[in-house]
Amino acid sequence: MEQTVQDFKAYLERITMFGQAMSILAYDAEVVAPKGGIQARAKRAGFFSLEMFKMITADTAKKLLDDLNPHLADLDKETKAMYRLAKKNYDEYTKIPPEKVQAFAELTSEATEVWANARKENNFAAFSPYLKRIIAMQKEFLELRADEIPEGGKPYDVFLNDYEDGMTIAKYDDFFEKLKATVVPLIKQIANSGKKIETEFVKSKVDIAIQRELSTMLATKIGYDLDRGVIGEAAHPFCSGAEKTDVRITTRYDEHDFLSSLYSIMHECGHAIYEQNIGDDIAGTILGSGTSSGIHESQSRLYENVIGRSLEFWQYLTDDLKAILPDGFKNATSQMFFEAANESKPSLIRVEADELTYGLHVVIRYEIEKMIFAGEVEVDDLPALWNKKYQEYLGITPPTDADGLMQDIHWSGGMFGYFPTYALGSAYAAQFLYYMRKEMDVDALIRKGDFAPITKWLEDKIHVYGSMYTPNDLMELSFGEQLDGEHYAKYLKDKFTALYGL
Amino acid sequence: MEQTVQDFKAYLERITMFGQAMSILAYDAEVVAPKGGIQARAKRAGFFSLEMFKMITADTAKKLLDDLNPHLADLDKETKAMYRLAKKNYDEYTKIPPEKVQAFAELTSEATEVWANARKENNFAAFSPYLKRIIAMQKEFLELRADEIPEGGKPYDVFLNDYEDGMTIAKYDDFFEKLKATVVPLIKQIANSGKKIETEFVKSKVDIAIQRELSTMLATKIGYDLDRGVIGEAAHPFCSGAEKTDVRITTRYDEHDFLSSLYSIMHECGHAIYEQNIGDDIAGTILGSGTSSGIHESQSRLYENVIGRSLEFWQYLTDDLKAILPDGFKNATSQMFFEAANESKPSLIRVEADELTYGLHVVIRYEIEKMIFAGEVEVDDLPALWNKKYQEYLGITPPTDADGLMQDIHWSGGMFGYFPTYALGSAYAAQFLYYMRKEMDVDALIRKGDFAPITKWLEDKIHVYGSMYTPNDLMELSFGEQLDGEHYAKYLKDKFTALYGL
Repeated sequence: MEQTVQDFKAYLERITMFGQAMSILAYDAEVVAPKGGIQARAKRAGFFSLEMFKMITADTAKKLLDDLNPHLADLDKETKAMYRLAKKNYDEYTKIPPEKVQAFAELTSEATEVWANARKENNFAAFSPYLKRIIAMQKEFLELRADEIPEGGKPYDVFLNDYEDGMTIAKYDDFFEKLKATVVPLIKQIANSGKKIETEFVKSKVDIAIQRELSTMLATKIGYDLDRGVIGEAAHPFCSGAEKTDVRITTRYDEHDFLSSLYSIMHECGHAIYEQNIGDDIAGTILGSGTSSGIHESQSRLYENVIGRSLEFWQYLTDDLKAILPDGFKNATSQMFFEAANESKPSLIRVEADELTYGLHVVIRYEIEKMIFAGEVEVDDLPALWNKKYQEYLGITPPTDADGLMQDIHWSGGMFGYFPTYALGSAYAAQFLYYMRKEMDVDALIRKGDFAPITKWLEDKIHVYGSMYTPNDLMELSFGEQLDGEHYAKYLKDKFTALYGL
Repeated sequence: MEQTVQDFKAYLERITMFGQAMSILAYDAEVVAPKGGIQARAKRAGFFSLEMFKMITADTAKKLLDDLNPHLADLDKETKAMYRLAKKNYDEYTKIPPEKVQAFAELTSEATEVWANARKENNFAAFSPYLKRIIAMQKEFLELRADEIPEGGKPYDVFLNDYEDGMTIAKYDDFFEKLKATVVPLIKQIANSGKKIETEFVKSKVDIAIQRELSTMLATKIGYDLDRGVIGEAAHPFCSGAEKTDVRITTRYDEHDFLSSLYSIMHECGHAIYEQNIGDDIAGTILGSGTSSGIHESQSRLYENVIGRSLEFWQYLTDDLKAILPDGFKNATSQMFFEAANESKPSLIRVEADELTYGLHVVIRYEIEKMIFAGEVEVDDLPALWNKKYQEYLGITPPTDADGLMQDIHWSGGMFGYFPTYALGSAYAAQFLYYMRKEMDVDALIRKGDFAPITKWLEDKIHVYGSMYTPNDLMELSFGEQLDGEHYAKYLKDKFTALYGL
C-alpha cells in the first residue's frame, strides 16, 4: 500500500513536471518566441499534449487508481485530494473512445476556422451546420457520461461540473435569477437617471514607458512578488504559472487607454497572487494551483473590480498617479476617475461590458445552452432567441449575428458549460467582500493603499489551500456557506445606486 | 525493415522534441524567468535530463540500433547519418555504468564549487585533490572505452573525438605546431615594433538604447532573420535554437564598451545564421543542427573576426555608425576603429585575449591535457608547467594560479578534450576565407556591406548540410581537404603584419 501511494505520487509528479514545462512553453510562444516558428511550435505543442494524454490514460495510471480506490479512507487528506483530481482527469480522458475524441478535435478545429470567417462575413448560415454537428457529438458524449448526471439532474449538468466542480443547473438557476432580478431593473433606472459621466479625459495620451512603470508599481503594491514573477507583453493578457515561485502575467498597452492596462494588470495580478500564495506543503504538486476557474476568477475580479473600481481606490491612487501622468489629467479628481472607470450602459459585446451589465451577457448564453441540451431549441432558431433575450434583459437588439451569438469562440471549440463560470468570479468576490468587511475596515485600508491585510486574508481563507478542496468544500470550510448570488446582487445594487444617485 | 526504420525515426523524433523543449526552457531560464524560481527550475531541468537519458539508453533504443546495424548499406544517406549520431549518443551514455556516471556527476558538481572558491582564494592546493580524483575517474572511464582509441592512437584521442568527431592527437599536433611556429615569433615582433594603438575613444559612453538599435541593424544586415529569431539579453551571450525557424541569440550591454556587444552580436549571429540555414529536408530532425563545435565556432568567428574585425568592415560601417554614436566618436576613422578592435598584446586570461594570441592559450591547455592523460605530469606539478609555457609562448608569467591554470571552469566539470575545439573555429574560418576568395572579391563585398553573397556561399558549402556529415567528411565534400592549420597561420600573419607595419 505504501508502495502504491509512492508510485501514485511519482506518477503525479511526472504529470506535474510536464504540465509546468508546457506552461512555460506556452508563455514563451505568446511572449518571447519569433513569429516564424509557429508551425514548429504547433507541432511541439501537439507532441506534448499527446504525451500528457498518454500519461493520464496509461494502463499503469488506471491500475494505480484501482489499487488505491478500496483504501481511500486510510489515505491522508492530501493524497485523498490528489486521488480526486487524478480520477477526474482519468475519467475525462477515457470515457470517450479515442477515435471519437480525434474526430471531435478535427471537427472543432475546422469549425473554429469556419466560425472566424462566418463571423467576419456575418453569415450564421455558414457556421450553423458545424454547430449542429458539434452539438450532436456533444449529446452523444453526454450519453456515454450519463453516470455523471447528478440525482434529479440533466445532461447539461455534466458540462457545468466539468468547468466548476460541484456546480449544477439548480445552483446556477438560483444564482442567475437573483442576479437578473436586481440588474435588469437597475439598468432601466440608470438609463432613466439622466446622469452623464465624463469619460473623455481618461483617453488622453500616456506614454507606454509611463504605463509600464505604473504596472510595476501597482502590481508590487497590491502584493504581486516580482522576484517570483514577470510582467510580459502579449496581445491577450493572461496569467500562467509553472509553480508558486514562477508565476507570470502579461498585459498590453494602448497609449490612449491607460485604464485598460491598469485594470488588466490588476486582474492578472489577482490570478497571480492566488498562485504565489499556495501553501508550501502542496506547492509543486498536482494540488499546487488554484482550485477552479470560478474561484480563480474571483481573485482577479476582486483586485480588478472590488478594489480597483472602488471610489476608495481612486482616493488612494489619484494624487500619486497625477504626479506621473501628463497634463491631460491635471484637472481629474478621484471622483472623476471612479465614475469613468464604472460608466454602465447596455452593450452588445461581453468582453467590453461594464461590471454591472457583464453578468447578463453570461446569463443569456447560459440560458440558451441549457435549452440546447434540453432539446428546447433548434440551432436555426438561435439568432432569434439570442436577440429576443438581449432585448428583454439589456434593452438592445444586436444589428448583426456577428455582434450577436457569433461574438464568442467557445461554441466553435465545442465548449458548453464554460460560459457561466465567467459570472461566478464576480459573485464569489462579492461574497468574500461581505465576509472580509466583518473582520476589517476594507474601505479604509483601500483608501490608505494598505492592501497587505486584504491579501493576507485571502491567502489564509483561499490561496493557501490550492486545489485541496472543491469550490463548494472550500466555501464551507472558510465561510460556512456555498455560493450565494445574493451578495453579488447586493454589491452591484449598492455600488451602482450610489454611483448614479438613484 | 521498413517498419524498423519508421520506428527508429519516431524514436529520434521523440528525442528531438524533448531536445527542442529543453532548449527553449534553458533560454527561458537565462533570459525570461524570475530569479525566485531557480530551485523549481533546477528540479525540472534534472527531471527532463533524466527523461532524455532514459530515452537514449532504453532497451528499445538498443534493439533499434542492433536491428538496423546489419542493413546500414541499404539505408538512404539521411537515415545512415541519423544512425551514426544515434549510435554515438547511445554509446556515450551506456559504456560507463550508471552508478559511476552518478558518482562522477556528484564529484564534478562538488569540485566546481570547490574550484570557484579556490580560484577566489588563489588556493590551488584546495582544488588539486578534486582534480586528482576527477582525472583518476576519467582514466578509469577511458579504460572502459579503449575500443574507441584510433589505430596507433592514445586514450586522450577518445576525448578529442568526443568533442569534435574525427579529431585526433596527430591532427591537433600538426595544427598547433603550425600555429605556434607563426604566432610565437609574431608576438615578439609586435612587442618590438613600438607601434602604439589608440583604444581610449572606443570606451566613450554609448546609450544602451543606441546599442540595441545597432544590434538589430547589424544582425539583420549580416543575414540573421529576426522573423525566425530573437535578440534577448543575458549575463552570458549565447545562441540557442529549437530548430531553424526559431533560433535565438543573447547579448549584454556595457555603456562604456559598445564594441563588446557589437562583437558578441556578430559572434552569436554567426552561430544563428548557421542554424537558420539548415536544409529544409533535414530541418527538425536529429540532423537539423550544426555538425560540431568546431564547425559551429568557425561560423561565429568568421562573422566576428574575419568579417567584423577587418579593415573593410570598418570602412563599410564607420560613417553609418558615427551618425548614431555620440560626440565622443566624431574624430574616429575606419582605420582607428580597425586598429582598436585588433590591438594585440600577450595577456593572462583566454576569454579576454585578442585574435592573434587567443590560439596560444588553447595550445597550452591542450599540451598539458595531453601530458596528463599520457601520465607525463602530476597534478601537483601543473602550476609550474603552466607558468613555464606561458613564459615560453606568450612571454609572460601569471602572478597567481587564479589567473593561471585555475582561470577556466572546464576541468572542475571533468571536461578534457573540449578546449582544443576553441581554436578550431578560427582555423576553419581562415580556411573558408581562403576558398571564398577564389570565388568572389570578399574585401570588396565587405567594404560595400554586401554580406549576402558571403552568407549564401557559407549556406551552400556548410549550413545546408546540418549534421549530415562529420566535420572531416564535410570538409572533403565541400573543399576536397580536411582541416589545414596553414590557412589560419597565414591569415594571422598577413593581418597582423600589415596592422603593425612589420
